[in-house]
Amino acid sequence: MSTKADVKGLEYIFHPRSIAFLGVSSNPANPIGETLIGPYLEHEFDGGLYPINPKGGEWRGLKIYPSLKEIPGPVDSVIIFLGAPTVPKVMEECVEKGVKVATLFSAGFSELGTEEGKRLEAETIEIAKRGGVRIIGPNCFGIYCPKTKLGAGLGFPEESGNVCFLSQSGASFFYMVRAGASRGIRFSKVISYGNASDLNESDFLEYLTQDSDTEIITAYLEGVKDGQRFLKALKAAAEVKPVIVYKGGYTEAGAKTAASHTGSLAVGDAILDAIFKQLGVVRVYSMDELIDVILSFLYMSPPKGRNVGVVGTGGGASVQIADECERMGLHVPKLPPEVMKKLSKTAPEAGSILGNPFDSSMALFDVSKFAESIKVIASWEGIDLMILHRGLSVMSNQGLTMRTEESRRETYLSCAQECEKPTAIVLHSVASTAEAWEVVGEWQRRCNEVKLPLYPSLDRAANAINKFIGYHEERMKRNAFEDKNSS
Amino acid sequence: MSTKADVKGLEYIFHPRSIAFLGVSSNPANPIGETLIGPYLEHEFDGGLYPINPKGGEWRGLKIYPSLKEIPGPVDSVIIFLGAPTVPKVMEECVEKGVKVATLFSAGFSELGTEEGKRLEAETIEIAKRGGVRIIGPNCFGIYCPKTKLGAGLGFPEESGNVCFLSQSGASFFYMVRAGASRGIRFSKVISYGNASDLNESDFLEYLTQDSDTEIITAYLEGVKDGQRFLKALKAAAEVKPVIVYKGGYTEAGAKTAASHTGSLAVGDAILDAIFKQLGVVRVYSMDELIDVILSFLYMSPPKGRNVGVVGTGGGASVQIADECERMGLHVPKLPPEVMKKLSKTAPEAGSILGNPFDSSMALFDVSKFAESIKVIASWEGIDLMILHRGLSVMSNQGLTMRTEESRRETYLSCAQECEKPTAIVLHSVASTAEAWEVVGEWQRRCNEVKLPLYPSLDRAANAINKFIGYHEERMKRNAFEDKNSS
Repeated sequence: MSTKADVKGLEYIFHPRSIAFLGVSSNPANPIGETLIGPYLEHEFDGGLYPINPKGGEWRGLKIYPSLKEIPGPVDSVIIFLGAPTVPKVMEECVEKGVKVATLFSAGFSELGTEEGKRLEAETIEIAKRGGVRIIGPNCFGIYCPKTKLGAGLGFPEESGNVCFLSQSGASFFYMVRAGASRGIRFSKVISYGNASDLNESDFLEYLTQDSDTEIITAYLEGVKDGQRFLKALKAAAEVKPVIVYKGGYTEAGAKTAASHTGSLAVGDAILDAIFKQLGVVRVYSMDELIDVILSFLYMSPPKGRNVGVVGTGGGASVQIADECERMGLHVPKLPPEVMKKLSKTAPEAGSILGNPFDSSMALFDVSKFAESIKVIASWEGIDLMILHRGLSVMSNQGLTMRTEESRRETYLSCAQECEKPTAIVLHSVASTAEAWEVVGEWQRRCNEVKLPLYPSLDRAANAINKFIGYHEERMKRNAFEDKNSS
Repeated sequence: MSTKADVKGLEYIFHPRSIAFLGVSSNPANPIGETLIGPYLEHEFDGGLYPINPKGGEWRGLKIYPSLKEIPGPVDSVIIFLGAPTVPKVMEECVEKGVKVATLFSAGFSELGTEEGKRLEAETIEIAKRGGVRIIGPNCFGIYCPKTKLGAGLGFPEESGNVCFLSQSGASFFYMVRAGASRGIRFSKVISYGNASDLNESDFLEYLTQDSDTEIITAYLEGVKDGQRFLKALKAAAEVKPVIVYKGGYTEAGAKTAASHTGSLAVGDAILDAIFKQLGVVRVYSMDELIDVILSFLYMSPPKGRNVGVVGTGGGASVQIADECERMGLHVPKLPPEVMKKLSKTAPEAGSILGNPFDSSMALFDVSKFAESIKVIASWEGIDLMILHRGLSVMSNQGLTMRTEESRRETYLSCAQECEKPTAIVLHSVASTAEAWEVVGEWQRRCNEVKLPLYPSLDRAANAINKFIGYHEERMKRNAFEDKNSS
């Protein structure tokens, strides 16, 4: 009961009427103001924004108040980026002002492992609890919620989406929003909660499980505050939404580092693995893998099985993708004679590999034939999903490429959209040159537009899809088991 | 004896006095001329260049000859990009003209698996052998040799280097040169040999083992023509130079595809693994991994052990890199009290993780203190090598970043150069935006300039370094064994 009340209770932290920022300088050369308040100006937050500094002055047209209490009217939320030793005193002022939630960007607390750091954190929390102020952090970047225009970083998208990300790490928080957004992900809520001194992963997880704006729950965790409560929350979350977790600190050296980073205690890695499996939580091992897997969940419907049809250019790439698919647990079935016969009508023999993978280096010179070939393969019942790949390494020069790339790209995209199987696109073998990145940028933009998952390498696509399929296989088994038990 | 003669005999294929190109059109809209001859014009090849087309005409100021025999003077080399069925007849003309080596870009031969394809290839080879013409290909892109200005692709670097790459795949050939070059690799010879109908991997490997311009031998192989001879050549090569091999087709699906791609037969993967281990050949599983490993060999001296000192920004990244290092077989040792004491003088506590990994998010605001911290860690005798990492995800906006990035980058680079341990740089968490790629481009350019290996992710750096160290550990064991046996 109390948990449910807490969950409902958290809603207000995403809807502050006004926000004060402590740690802003009136000196325009100091970047802190831009970092803290910039995102709110950028997204045109429609409540009050109050920079605070004892010296007063102005910051980008906003009046700087000397202290919290001098702000006219209520302050629902404060964001604090001050030296740790000053934070308890500031928290007293928050209590006096009737602040509802304080986000502590400041570091220098329990994560240091020092007595002083622990004491400062405990003191701050004690004051906040007594005065009814909830705390996010310290050692964090707080909340990005595009729907209510809360934004922790400049350049974060204004549009909302259905993915949430809970992050104990500030850098991972920024990376998820920036890299995820550039790859087509949009977010309901992204929360960097650092040391979790008050509001922790379980609070947020319980909230997000019930949050109707969130359809996919993802997290970077280094540890949890209350194992029992977290497991309960994780189980409840995984029952209703896909949950994808990257647990940092899974080796001894990593766990030691996590302890210094966010004061987290280690959990045995094998135990964690068993728990995730039992609950149906998808486990990943890097931020990029997390983004890769989210894209499969976002943009692919669950395939019926693991049989993949692979089409693209380059014989070497075809060999490599066949290896990668098999290594990652997908199957690349041989095409039966009737499909091969159809295929031989749409593709020239020389320079192609007729079969699966289908290499169409030459077919690409005739995009309509290429499209026909894709349809032939995708429409065979033995294929459950498609991977269309394109290597950019053979780009002869910019003029040649930009001229021909558009029609190739659009052929891929229209084939992917028309084909009735879940489809992923792989744009691989990209040398890091300005020209190549321009081409990649345009592919990415178009894939985002038509809502297709784009992967930068064969192994990353196959790995993400494998985890996506694994999730749905597990769900089906679970549902079958429940059906059986309930009948 | 005959082998040695063959090796010497191959030298001439890298020194043609003149080259004829079959398959060029006088129509400027046809890109084949640019693809075939363009690289030779770009690198100012100083011998004769002769486009050939029965219709005659001109291509970019070069006279198009109607046939080989009408070219005045000798033609040492021909590059053929014609339909497979016409190739045997053209080969007769090559024989008549006294051509020494013919590179067959054309596909449509044995790799199709058809009787007709096999027959055409056999017939072509038979004519060539009879007439003393050596063949590279078919189904290939031939030779890139910057020293003698032979260039198979537009935009390939003019400078020579000490790395060779043998590739059965044309796309992998292009990717190695383009992506490898952008990451700072320069080449002695790069050879795409496709179906290996005449000159094959063993011929080239024997040559490259003795080639004084080549210090590191690398290859993408799908299969070999003569297993016994290849193993002998591989053993001889690995005895004198590092050999790094990516074997495509290591799964069943991959092997099936390789058979269609270059007509290669599968070798059991476990057998291959055992052979590579025995010979001291470094095995990799993707083109990017190959490039990663080459960079360690090129730009790092062999570390004395596996103890890595990790310095960079971002607590989450530090946890993640500690995990990745351990997972990939490196050790992240704990710093002893005396080193910790020194470190505490150079870095602010808050926002940093004092230890190894050392997280310097705050220290970065004072680059000289950051440099001091790196020196403290690197100079401890318990550290064998250093990884300096930088995450770009916290970039607030372009202005902020470009302004501060230069001093941060140069601090990293000067620390890396001054520190007496082998050092790798990791630039991770790069969202794919135009601004981010600009920053990355500048990091890459500067790392290439000062000859430091730059990796795009923590796991890729740790993996490459692990293989590099593994190679040297193996060499040391081998040498110790030989010393013992010879004493």
